[in-house]
This record gives sequence, C-alpha cells and structure tokens, in this order.
Amino acid sequence: MVRSDGEFKVKVLDLDFGSFRFIIINASDAVERDIKANERVRILKGDRSCTAHVMISKTIISKGEVALPKNVADELKVRDGDSVGVRPVLSSKSTLHIKRKVLGDKLSQEEIRTIIKEVVDGTIGEAEIASFLTAQYFYGLTHDELEALIKAMVETGAVIEFEDKAYDEHSIGGVPGNSKVALIVVPTVAAGGLLIPKTSSRAIVSPSGTADTMEVLANVEFEPEELKRIALKTKGTIVWGGALRLAPSDDIFIRVEHRLMIDPPTQMVASILAKKLAMNISTLIIDIPVGKGAKVESMKEAEALARLFVEQASRLGMRTKCTLSYGGQPIGHCVGPALEAREALEALLTGEGAMSLIGKALSIAGLLFEEAGVARRGSGIEIAKQIFYSGKSYDKFKEIIEAQGGNPHVKPEDIPVGEHRIDIEAPEDSYVTHVDNTAITLIARVAGAPLDKGAGVKVYVKAGGKVRKGDKLLTIYAESKSKLSQAYSLAQQLQPVTLEGMILKVYPE
Amino acid sequence: MVRSDGEFKVKVLDLDFGSFRFIIINASDAVERDIKANERVRILKGDRSCTAHVMISKTIISKGEVALPKNVADELKVRDGDSVGVRPVLSSKSTLHIKRKVLGDKLSQEEIRTIIKEVVDGTIGEAEIASFLTAQYFYGLTHDELEALIKAMVETGAVIEFEDKAYDEHSIGGVPGNSKVALIVVPTVAAGGLLIPKTSSRAIVSPSGTADTMEVLANVEFEPEELKRIALKTKGTIVWGGALRLAPSDDIFIRVEHRLMIDPPTQMVASILAKKLAMNISTLIIDIPVGKGAKVESMKEAEALARLFVEQASRLGMRTKCTLSYGGQPIGHCVGPALEAREALEALLTGEGAMSLIGKALSIAGLLFEEAGVARRGSGIEIAKQIFYSGKSYDKFKEIIEAQGGNPHVKPEDIPVGEHRIDIEAPEDSYVTHVDNTAITLIARVAGAPLDKGAGVKVYVKAGGKVRKGDKLLTIYAESKSKLSQAYSLAQQLQPVTLEGMILKVYPE
Repeated sequence: MVRSDGEFKVKVLDLDFGSFRFIIINASDAVERDIKANERVRILKGDRSCTAHVMISKTIISKGEVALPKNVADELKVRDGDSVGVRPVLSSKSTLHIKRKVLGDKLSQEEIRTIIKEVVDGTIGEAEIASFLTAQYFYGLTHDELEALIKAMVETGAVIEFEDKAYDEHSIGGVPGNSKVALIVVPTVAAGGLLIPKTSSRAIVSPSGTADTMEVLANVEFEPEELKRIALKTKGTIVWGGALRLAPSDDIFIRVEHRLMIDPPTQMVASILAKKLAMNISTLIIDIPVGKGAKVESMKEAEALARLFVEQASRLGMRTKCTLSYGGQPIGHCVGPALEAREALEALLTGEGAMSLIGKALSIAGLLFEEAGVARRGSGIEIAKQIFYSGKSYDKFKEIIEAQGGNPHVKPEDIPVGEHRIDIEAPEDSYVTHVDNTAITLIARVAGAPLDKGAGVKVYVKAGGKVRKGDKLLTIYAESKSKLSQAYSLAQQLQPVTLEGMILKVYPE
Repeated sequence: MVRSDGEFKVKVLDLDFGSFRFIIINASDAVERDIKANERVRILKGDRSCTAHVMISKTIISKGEVALPKNVADELKVRDGDSVGVRPVLSSKSTLHIKRKVLGDKLSQEEIRTIIKEVVDGTIGEAEIASFLTAQYFYGLTHDELEALIKAMVETGAVIEFEDKAYDEHSIGGVPGNSKVALIVVPTVAAGGLLIPKTSSRAIVSPSGTADTMEVLANVEFEPEELKRIALKTKGTIVWGGALRLAPSDDIFIRVEHRLMIDPPTQMVASILAKKLAMNISTLIIDIPVGKGAKVESMKEAEALARLFVEQASRLGMRTKCTLSYGGQPIGHCVGPALEAREALEALLTGEGAMSLIGKALSIAGLLFEEAGVARRGSGIEIAKQIFYSGKSYDKFKEIIEAQGGNPHVKPEDIPVGEHRIDIEAPEDSYVTHVDNTAITLIARVAGAPLDKGAGVKVYVKAGGKVRKGDKLLTIYAESKSKLSQAYSLAQQLQPVTLEGMILKVYPE
C-alpha cells in the first residue's frame, strides 16, 4: 500500500473546533492511502500548507472529497470546490529534539529552528509542546538556545518595520490588576511625541492581559498594515500581538501554558522579546513585578530574570532596561478585563486613582522619555506627570480608542461589568495585614475572567489599611450565577484578604 | 447567562476520530449555555459519564440535539434518540496539582487520585498529561506518591480475580526484538501447570510490544470475563491489557508517552504494577534488559529500578523478583510484529533459534517455577528446557492461539511480512563490533512498525561475528514504498551495524 499525496476536492464544513486544525477524509480514501483516524496529515494548497488531525467518515463526504473547518480553509485560502493536496506526516523531527531536551541535552540552533517550524505548521501538538515547556522549568535554556529560540520565533512570522525609532514597554505580568497599566503608559508616551506601537498579549495565568482589557474599549485585532497605519497616525497603539502573526508560535505556546497554568522564565523572555524584535522595537522597558504571589517573589530572582532579558536584548540589538516594581498585592483596585478598563479610563479622565496604578505607569513612561533622550536622567517622570495631569494622556487615549475602532466618548460607567455580584465584608474592626495575589487571581478566573469580560474582583483595601466591621473588602463580579457561586465558595476557602486578629482556621473543623 | 445542565437528544455521527472524545453542540444551544468551541463538557447518562471536547455547528444538528461519535456513544451506552445531560466543566482540580509537581512539590494520595480520576474521565488532556510525565523525569515520585499512583490507577479500572494463584512475567522492554520472549515464556509456564494470565502492552517507543506481536497470530482484545474463561481453560493467555479496562489511565499515559517518545521510570513501574495488581497476580518476574541503547544502560541504574519495583510490589502485597538481562543488542534476529511472531513460532516449532531468545525465555520460565515452589532454586531452567524441547511449549502455544481465536496450525512462513524490502550488505570482509539498538528501533519504526504489522528489520549478525563481503547484515521490511525508502535513508545515515575497520564518516563530506 503506497502512502502518497492525493488531490481532493474541498467542502468547507460548518463545524467549529476553535483553532484546532482537522480534516475529514472519506473512509475509503483513508484505507487506500493508509491514513488512520487521529493521525496528522499535511494539507497543501499552492505555497500554503498546514498540518491537521484526521477524522474519518463514510457519509459526511464522498470519495475524493475532504471536509475542512472554516479556520483551516481560511488559513489555506481555499473555498468550496477548490482542490488541495493531502500528504501523510510520517514523522516529526522535533519530537526527538524535545526528548533530548527532556533528558538534559543542549539543542543546536538548527534543532530549535526545527521545533519552532513544526510548532507553527502543526506537525507537533499540545503534548510535545507541553513537554518542551515543562523541560524548560528544569534545565532552562542556555543563552545560545534562547537566542536561537527567539530568532526562530521571529523568522516563522511576520515582521513590521517603522521609519521612525519605535519604543515600547512590557510587563511580565502575574500581578492581578496589572493589565491596565499600559492603558496609561501608552497614551502618555505617545502624547510625549514618541512612537509606541504596543503589542500585548492575552492572559496566560492572570485574570486579564492588556489585550483582553483594551478589547473592552476597542478592537485589538489588526492586520500588520492596519496597525502600521494606526501607529503612524496616533503614535500609540494597544493591540493584540497574536492577530498580527508576529512570532505565531508564541500564541501556540501561550495556549498550552494557559492550559497548564505554567509560564517558564526562558519561554517568557522568548515570548516578549520575539514579539518586540518582530516589531523592530529599538528601546524597550520591561517591568518585573516582585512580591509574594507575583511571578517573581524575590529580588534575587528578579535580578536574574532582568539579566536574562538584558543579555538577550543586547544579542538582538535592542536597548533594554528592566524596572523591578512592587507586585506583592494587586495593582489598583480592579481585576478582570472590564473592571480594569473602567479603572484605567477613570484615572485618565479624572487624574485620580490608586498610586500603585498611576505612579507605576508614569514612572515607566518617564523612563522611556529618558531612554529616548527627551528627558535627562531622573526627570522623565516630571514630563510624564505633566502630560498625564494636563489631560493630554486622556486626549491621546481617546484618539487611540477611535483609531482602533472603539467609541472614544465612552465613560467608565458605560462599560458593562458582570451583573451577578457578591460582597465580602470585614467581620470586625481591624487592620488589613495581607491581600493575596494568588487568591485574587484564582477567584477572578473562576468567576470567568478573562473570557467573560465582565467577570473579576474589585478589592477595596490595601495591606496596612484600617477597616471597620461591615466595610466591604471585595466584590466578586460574574456573568453567570454558577460561576459567581463557585468563585464565592473559593473566596471563602482561600480568604484573599487577611485581617489582623482573624482566625485563619480551627482544628479540628 | 446561566451555565447549567441541559438535556439533549443524541444523534450518533459517522465521524471517527480514534479514541478522542468530542461532542457536537448546536450553535444556539452553545450560545445559550455559554459553551465555547474546544471547551470541555461532561456528558452524563445514568451513572455513566465522560468528558468530551466541544465542536459547534449550526447545521449538522438541530437545537436540542447533540451529535456523538461512536466511541463516545459506546462508552456511555447510548443510541440514536436517547437523551444525555451536558454540563460545562468549569475547572480541573488536577491542573493545579500537576503544576505543583512541576514546581517540585510532593503530592498527597488524594491529589494523585484526583489527577488519575481526571485523566480517566478526560477532564485533563494531552498537554496536562505530558507535563505530569515530563515532571516525573526530574523529580521522580516518592514511594508514597508512587504507591498512591498505582492504587489510583487500579481503583479507576476493572479488577479480575482468579481462584488459583496467578503468576506472571513482564519485561520493561526497550530492546528491539524483545516482544516475542513472552510468546515462549507463557506457553512453557502454562505447560508446566502454573496459571499465567499474561496481559501485555503495545509498543510505546519500541517497534513492537508483546500485544502487537501476539496480535499477528490471534486476537488480543477481550472482555474481562472472556479472558478469565480462556485463562481457566488454557492456564495461559497473551492479551492486550488495554482492552480489559484494567488501569485504563495507563493506556492514556502510554498514548502520550508514545507521542513524546519518553517513558519515565516511575510511570513505567506504575504502569506495570497497576496492571498486575488489577489482575491479582501473586508472583511476578520483572525483566530489566541492561545495555547500550536499552532503556537502562548501566547495572547501577538497573539495580535502582529493581529496588523500586520490589519496594512497590511488596507494598502492594506482590512477590516479585527482577531479572537483569543483557540488552545491549537486539533479542533474536527479528524486529517488528510479524517478523517477531514468525521467529517465536519457528523457535517453538523447531526448538531452534537464537540463544538470546530461547535462553532468556527459558531462564524466566524457570525462575517462575522456582518461585512457585515447583522447582528448587537453580533447577527451574531444567524443567523449562524439558517442556520446551519436548514440544509441550509449542502444543500449549497452539492451544492459546486457538483459545484466543487464531489459527493454531499457522506456520512461520504463512505469516505475511512487508513486501517492500531492501538488504544492507557488508562492504568488506570484517567482524561485527556493534549492533545499535537505538538505530534498529528507529529504522523499524520509520519503516512502519508497530502499526504496520509487516514492517521491521531482520538483523543477521551479532556483535563479535565474522562477515564476508556481500553477506547480508540486515533486511528492512515495509508495507509501503515510501516508508521503505525513508527507513533505508535513515539506515544509511545511522549505520546500525558497525564493522571493524569501517570508516564511520568522512570530513568534509
């Protein structure tokens, strides 16, 4: 029996399986070509191709036909009646490379390039990717491996070039409430005259990524050409990197990381720097929040990560500084896409809000002004404050919202948040000793964030603050009753806000 | 929007995706219930349930209907027109447990039980399982974790009890050609009067597992009751453990290990002992092949693994001895399901064959006779030889083949092997210095083994042997031209047989 390429007529099928790629092959074609269910095949159309999982049917399609879901048809740019080639995928080269990494070997540049190629074209799937990511937890990557990884991630995607020098800032995240910081940094920097075409990610393990939060106010998915047009007009953008096909392997990695709820440091560095390199960013500030429940808990760890960023950025020809910021409790008060969009908009509109939000955003903007030579060292924040408090940041933000297809006149109270809500109150007069990042994150996620935009948590208190009996500590927002009740029972179990004198547990229960 | 259980009418759909579980939900039901494509839902029917991935369609089914593939319908025992409940799976508990393992924590018995439960019911998928397996490479499992894992694997599956004491042998495998050893051990032990209801596995990373090889001669998939009936009649069986639903999580782990080409020691111990515990095996010989290119390369490593097996078996109340055998080159001459079935049958029929096959099989059988008290220490092999060379092993093997639905009169030459073949010959008179397990394994797999039964490699030489120019070193067999040519080019690259004086590579090429 010879397994060879075949030509098949396409039927685009109304069967949505998200971004998962599959193809339905007629049973007798499958037997003839020795293709089995759940194997992978390569689908070819001109110079486009992708790898998809095989489903087999006797009846859904006839012999000589294949059915493709819309996502695959779009990727290959085929329509009903077009013909495509189908070729068995006999073996993946990168499975062996990944296995060697799991066993502790170092990989060559060429081997890493093969892995990334096969991640992008779908030759290897979630299992292999999960293994590669998990292995990075133990062995990390050498500087050479990491550089090869970043370059391969960039090479396999689109690249955007600007005439002017482009600036950017990026937080490694991990602190609930952090996704909104960029909504203040970007318009402030752009209003100061620098080009800041920010691409951001969706949440991996946090309740909202900057792209999730911005999406409440405007579109975040653009083609590279559109992004360029917007950036040249407004000098600032806040878009989702994933839609631009910059370093497309990154979004596949992120999907698996999301599922595993892990985020290995080397992959994090690769993820951030690959997207920035693909955007030809010349100068970049990377924010590393440090504190209990953040991605990085100690200054020592943060410094090691900062060194990794700076070493790699310099290998790639990017000027980079890392800010190590306090991340031991939520940034601002709100957690979740819509709640955070409201909070950022409120701050821009009124100039009022939590210092953990406004102070941090203006420090980062100020540092960019210094790196760009617009301000001398130490005085960048003054320029940022002037822009922010004069309302220029808000005006610029409205421009950006409008350019990205949103309503620039939206007011914070116009933004819908989850209609199912529950408050948690202080049981006694006391002081707040601790607000637990991890607990807030889990509660917000169980409540539905980031996919349910209106879900999240509003935290009214900060560590050290005084509360009176009956004061609200937090409100949980959800878009469905069942998620609210799950999130509430989790909150009762995790006790995200600790008060002095509060008994944490009684034994035996 | 409330996400709650719903009742849906089932349509069984002709769409085969292997063992992957999916459900097709109508688009408006999905919107109403806030279920998204590629999310997982739990499908409920009476006391049966499973977790499946969601596909969404506007047209394939109507509102109020769901479509299920045959594998899911069979698992839930539902037919066209039956109704099932569908409930969103909001979160997996074991993802967090697995993440903690990845970060180096120890897991409790309860946490491990949760992981195994969610592996079996499909709440977690390949990515999470791959991460759990990869983490075992680094941290291993403590004795308590491993014991909990084995017990959880047994508890989540079927259990088979025999009135008589049951014996068994199992090789950890990893050496090409090893899968056929059991085809001699089992009939010899059964002919000696002991009950040996052997369950075996399919290949993970090798070119054939014992179940793959036996399947060439007889059925290997039976219901627990059938197996019991066969075992009581013949005293011996060689069946696939996976079909018995003993420790069903194991087959899911093996699928992912197969894809990743990894096999962590702790999971290997769990896999073997869980299946044996579920079969109530009282006395077990575990064979650990040691040598270059085997799973275990040094005696030190082999001894550590043997201690792990013995410690766990004793915790579980099984009497266990491990044999450390030579595994530095292939066992016998043939590699691949059909080729190995031929070789074992030939040895049973004629009493002739490679000592690496017959000697090993009879040693293991002899040890079982000693452990059972049928022979005194050191004399078990004599009993085994007597049985084997008198033809009783062959007679018993025919009984077993017949009881398992095969043709007992089959002759070695009746067994079809791949019709596409190529020989590799000695380029000069020389001596064989090395036969490379790993290379032989890879060549056989690229040639199509184990899924293509007739694919594999016949190796004519052993290390130390003399060859003359033009002598055959090996023959590659494949069922398709394209696989043969892939395997041949791999063989040229890997040079699986090293001859003295042979130049390995020339630089520059």
